[in-house]
Amino acid sequence: MMAKQDQERGAGPEPATALGRVLALCGGVGGAKLAHGLSQILAPEELFVAVNTGDDFEHVGLPVSPDLDTVMYTLAEAADPERGWGIAGETWRFMAMLAPFKELSWFNLGDKDLATHLRRAQALRAGLDLDQATRSLCYSFGVRHRVFPMTLERLRTVVVTEQGRLPFQDYFVRLGCRPRTRAIEFAGAGQAAPHPLFDSLLTGGGLRAVILCPSNPFLSIDPILALKNARSRLRAVDAPVVAVSPIVGGKALRGPAAKLMEEMKLPVNNLSVAEHYRDFLDGLIIDEADRHEIGAIEKLGIRVKIAAAVMRSTQDRIALAKTCLRFAAQLQSPRRRSQVR
Amino acid sequence: MMAKQDQERGAGPEPATALGRVLALCGGVGGAKLAHGLSQILAPEELFVAVNTGDDFEHVGLPVSPDLDTVMYTLAEAADPERGWGIAGETWRFMAMLAPFKELSWFNLGDKDLATHLRRAQALRAGLDLDQATRSLCYSFGVRHRVFPMTLERLRTVVVTEQGRLPFQDYFVRLGCRPRTRAIEFAGAGQAAPHPLFDSLLTGGGLRAVILCPSNPFLSIDPILALKNARSRLRAVDAPVVAVSPIVGGKALRGPAAKLMEEMKLPVNNLSVAEHYRDFLDGLIIDEADRHEIGAIEKLGIRVKIAAAVMRSTQDRIALAKTCLRFAAQLQSPRRRSQVR
Repeated sequence: MMAKQDQERGAGPEPATALGRVLALCGGVGGAKLAHGLSQILAPEELFVAVNTGDDFEHVGLPVSPDLDTVMYTLAEAADPERGWGIAGETWRFMAMLAPFKELSWFNLGDKDLATHLRRAQALRAGLDLDQATRSLCYSFGVRHRVFPMTLERLRTVVVTEQGRLPFQDYFVRLGCRPRTRAIEFAGAGQAAPHPLFDSLLTGGGLRAVILCPSNPFLSIDPILALKNARSRLRAVDAPVVAVSPIVGGKALRGPAAKLMEEMKLPVNNLSVAEHYRDFLDGLIIDEADRHEIGAIEKLGIRVKIAAAVMRSTQDRIALAKTCLRFAAQLQSPRRRSQVR
Repeated sequence: MMAKQDQERGAGPEPATALGRVLALCGGVGGAKLAHGLSQILAPEELFVAVNTGDDFEHVGLPVSPDLDTVMYTLAEAADPERGWGIAGETWRFMAMLAPFKELSWFNLGDKDLATHLRRAQALRAGLDLDQATRSLCYSFGVRHRVFPMTLERLRTVVVTEQGRLPFQDYFVRLGCRPRTRAIEFAGAGQAAPHPLFDSLLTGGGLRAVILCPSNPFLSIDPILALKNARSRLRAVDAPVVAVSPIVGGKALRGPAAKLMEEMKLPVNNLSVAEHYRDFLDGLIIDEADRHEIGAIEKLGIRVKIAAAVMRSTQDRIALAKTCLRFAAQLQSPRRRSQVR
């Protein structure tokens, strides 16, 4: 029946209820593509996307949640296909008015995108929490899968550079990732608790897989892992944990991951990614180009799957999502985690 | 020398410092045109524009001051020439995103205009008052003449209609002025004090003239007159008070003034306007088309000047502004006010 659906509809949902739920951990653009692929083959009640909010900040007086918005726009198929972030067909009249003001003009808020930020600001000021505000926004964008902030508390990514400690957006956007990085810190780490849904999915049973989307391990996934008990919950979870590596052929698919790894004296390869997640990871999906790394990674006790990791089309996203689920289904003994490592 | 400047520069400032300051009372579009004319012939230190804030409200979580913005954009020559309000070359992508939400989509905020509202919101949240926020905005738009809110306190226009008591923007924009009006009330009347500048200009001496711009007497000027002691200050001021009537040939130049007057059983003519202001008005400028009203108005002890009251061009605005100042200069005995009326 699954095959029949696949044949007939291409992106039809797999009959996964019996197989359980999927929790995806996700940052911005790269990760959102896989989350989109997963949303095309899983029903709304089967997919839960926990999104990094370590990059959230306030700009022009508005609360901005860049990764939540990117995931929402991507799942809504409203995202700009070139930029990856923001809304397709965006215009920048608002920004043009702010051009004379350097303290306001360094971060772009599109005219259409502004509706999201203003609606979120209004919801938060009315007493909703970030999750409720996100659900309301997602609903209006037609996103039925559950996209939620990694935490309802405050955790903020701080990049420790040669120019000092920088809030994430200062480093990432204002300074274009140019300062050399010494370390990455998370203000609120170990204190801010994960969203209750994160805990209940990891400890409540019925979980089919945890999937780490191909987001920057240090800037996008680490904030999630830095939440109180998040890492130990992943070590203990009774479901396979699979990651898709964002490193292909010694380069980051997108963004500053490779530059960061070099500055932090890490080899820019999938082994580094595997080592970073080794205490809880069961399987790592890497690109065909990196087949030579299989041996080194599997020595860590992490199974490797080769796949086309570069997602250029919706079909690529769906194919990679299917690979993730099938790979997870093959990894049937997560309990070995505590024994092996 | 004045004549020479006029000849040479057309819109050159009159050498008015010796003649004193001008206080203009102003609402939105119609009044702003005359304020613009005045700003073309008076130096920044000579002109003070007190603007109605009775229409201010909050929309999509943003504080909106429609008349302050209209005056600012008009003096900056940035206003849309067709609409009169908002910024020239405006786009509406933000509004298109809000279209599904009726509670948000009834009041238009343009993409460029949003920069003003967000900057104002940010300034107010940072602890500036509405006047300081306005000065900062005016500065960035290149407006050097002093545009200020009529009060720093809260006075709100409420339209009492057959459909009940309506906040001004509900009546004016959401319901398009359709409900029949029974009365207009000002929440905060007699309690909210005028901006300190209003008082100091009216009582401090050195005032050349008070000019009531051709704004709606009931919706745009009355909120100013409803402020604590505002009307008695105007009665006592030692300077001529001149109004430009917004009624021409039995019709309002713009907006619902005529409809309101009919619903409130007032003849739609300049005599009604004169009677409305009679306790403090020295002179009324009316259009050529209403020459027949001179006798009736002058019986009230108010001098009448005939002028072209319809401003289609900047030259029209400047001409009417000059007429106002010259007319005021002829009215040299404002003290008769207390004797005659």
